[in-house]
Amino acid sequence: VEERKDADKSDPYANDPKRHPALIPSSVKPFNAEPPVSLLIHNYITPNDLFFVRNHLPVPQINIKDFKLDIAIDGSEKKAKSFTVDTLKKVFPKRKITTTLQCAGNRRSEQIKIKPVKGLNWGMAAISTAEWTGATLDDVLKHCGVDIEKVNFAHIQFEGMDRGPDGTSYGASIPMEMARMLKNEIIIAYEMNGVDIPRDHGYPLRVIVPGTVGARQVKWLNKIVLSNEESGSHWQQRDYKGFNASVDWDTVDFKKSHAIQFLPVNSAICEPEEGQTLEKDADEVTLKGYAWSGGGRGIFRVDVSADGGKTWRTADLLEKPESLKQTDYRAWAWVFWEATIPLPENHDGKVELVCKASDSQYNVQPDSVEGVWNLRGCLNNAWHRVHVNVAK
Amino acid sequence: VEERKDADKSDPYANDPKRHPALIPSSVKPFNAEPPVSLLIHNYITPNDLFFVRNHLPVPQINIKDFKLDIAIDGSEKKAKSFTVDTLKKVFPKRKITTTLQCAGNRRSEQIKIKPVKGLNWGMAAISTAEWTGATLDDVLKHCGVDIEKVNFAHIQFEGMDRGPDGTSYGASIPMEMARMLKNEIIIAYEMNGVDIPRDHGYPLRVIVPGTVGARQVKWLNKIVLSNEESGSHWQQRDYKGFNASVDWDTVDFKKSHAIQFLPVNSAICEPEEGQTLEKDADEVTLKGYAWSGGGRGIFRVDVSADGGKTWRTADLLEKPESLKQTDYRAWAWVFWEATIPLPENHDGKVELVCKASDSQYNVQPDSVEGVWNLRGCLNNAWHRVHVNVAK
Ligand SMILES: [Mo]
Ligand SMILES: [Mo]
Repeated sequence: VEERKDADKSDPYANDPKRHPALIPSSVKPFNAEPPVSLLIHNYITPNDLFFVRNHLPVPQINIKDFKLDIAIDGSEKKAKSFTVDTLKKVFPKRKITTTLQCAGNRRSEQIKIKPVKGLNWGMAAISTAEWTGATLDDVLKHCGVDIEKVNFAHIQFEGMDRGPDGTSYGASIPMEMARMLKNEIIIAYEMNGVDIPRDHGYPLRVIVPGTVGARQVKWLNKIVLSNEESGSHWQQRDYKGFNASVDWDTVDFKKSHAIQFLPVNSAICEPEEGQTLEKDADEVTLKGYAWSGGGRGIFRVDVSADGGKTWRTADLLEKPESLKQTDYRAWAWVFWEATIPLPENHDGKVELVCKASDSQYNVQPDSVEGVWNLRGCLNNAWHRVHVNVAK
Repeated sequence: VEERKDADKSDPYANDPKRHPALIPSSVKPFNAEPPVSLLIHNYITPNDLFFVRNHLPVPQINIKDFKLDIAIDGSEKKAKSFTVDTLKKVFPKRKITTTLQCAGNRRSEQIKIKPVKGLNWGMAAISTAEWTGATLDDVLKHCGVDIEKVNFAHIQFEGMDRGPDGTSYGASIPMEMARMLKNEIIIAYEMNGVDIPRDHGYPLRVIVPGTVGARQVKWLNKIVLSNEESGSHWQQRDYKGFNASVDWDTVDFKKSHAIQFLPVNSAICEPEEGQTLEKDADEVTLKGYAWSGGGRGIFRVDVSADGGKTWRTADLLEKPESLKQTDYRAWAWVFWEATIPLPENHDGKVELVCKASDSQYNVQPDSVEGVWNLRGCLNNAWHRVHVNVAK
């Protein structure tokens, strides 16, 4: 990657890549952005340049000729093994996974409206879907003499090449138990939708852990460590955890909470949009949106309401692409849905639309944002509400 | 089993077993009953005679000398294999699983209070925990030449020996995909808490599918069928499915809904009980209860409130028995919890206590019973509310 001519050497973000102008930033340095919701549900597979971007630090400049992925065993002096990207491509069978990635902070803006939280002001599009290609973690570890089924280490740590001002790199980990459950569906990806992973999304390598929060799917991956400890990183230890609505910054104890891994069931209305005015004298409305659950749980049902949740109709779940044979318990990718429902007869020009989904474990979304509010604004999966005006 | 001398030959329930007098029946013929909540949380492992009973039909009288479990392949003329209970005990390694069973209708009474539903009026104790011993389904099928990983059939059907007036027996099925996920944790049990399974709980055999609704864990099991179809039974096809709150008996279409399998996260306050009066001038209250989630999801957190859900405290999760090493994603058995929290300063003598749990996928319970209400009254996992009086 060449340095930009105009790069300001004192700005660590000076060499960040160019981005699609349609992306809506929630922060510029580091760059974080989501696509407009209308574009989000336009493509089942999100185009790379519209995929939401969640960067914690500057995008690293990586020279592919010098790049290696190290596999290390905690407590052991020497590395177990190093791989170039070329080796990963040549030595291991190619595995493709189509999976939805969601930021833990997706839909945080609805929490912020109730009470301030610490975190980026994400709308409902900090979620996207791509087909990732790579070597399975299982194959790579086996090559290193490690059998996930038998290994005694309790965690797998992932380290990225993105670094903060103090030199520490982004890191995260998953429990070995999750690696066993997901096994040959965790991949060390080198392609995103058929091309080299774009710089914003982890070039040249990103670990893909289907069904899991985006934060654990480390970009610019250059180190995997088998360990008995979770990653010691800020983002594993003091971030991306859940708390009840009464925990504040004086009482919070990150040690006592659990790292977010698999995400709960979620859904959102992408059409119509908040504040939109429907056509004059409309007596029905067509809603469109997405639904997704973590842990491979598919979506059994999406319900929609045009009266704030007093009465419900079941939406149609749209067919997924023919090639995507994902089952009820290994459904890594989202579902799009659609419903045309009557407006309430005696509305006063203002209508509250609502959606909520049930996953294949019959887990449901909670009714109120108040109930899931937390000081970090993570894990908002309350019923999604959109208010529209109906001209009379 | 000998017939009772006083048996009324015209009553198919005349030979039902005697039950513990503390059990609270929700129906007598068939017998359905739950233990008092105070006893429920008295023992982490529910004593057999206090374990909730969910019978759909009369308890069959089974002569162990004639009893056989048949394994059949759908579409094939001959049985794959038959096993006596003795053979199951002698041929296969003994496997023990401690798992919580919950009826799909647990906590239905809270739905009934809002609007009538069709179903037994269960309180919050249609849930219990036992240690089951048996042969794994995987071992038994392997012995029949069937490898769960490779078999092409889409479902495993279970049939019981309990029969309705028309001669049809109770039946249920699980998708083969679930059998693959759970694999050597599905057992064909012959012991419950170290003794022969009591008649009310399936003597001599019951299939135990951890993390799954009680209805699929067929009692008096005498037939297993590998098939491409779900069980055709009433209970698989026209019962035990989820619907939104607006579906009524005129609009319900059972074919369009999914059979309930893994259950969603749930919890309940068992102490104090509804309507109880706390001690005079109490300024705090101690809450005790259980929490559980299906699909092996452990419990990450239980939150409690003494002001109807406006403010929350995190409860203490009590240690599980030493012998019970269940991990975050294979946590088949419930957790008990406890919390002592202050009463609101300006209460008027009436206090609403609330609990809600998050599981290891950070799935949460929904706020309101109204939101999960359905015509069959299944799947109530709303925040649990108990109203107490505080004498001043
Ligand atoms: Mo995230
Ligand atoms: Mo049940």
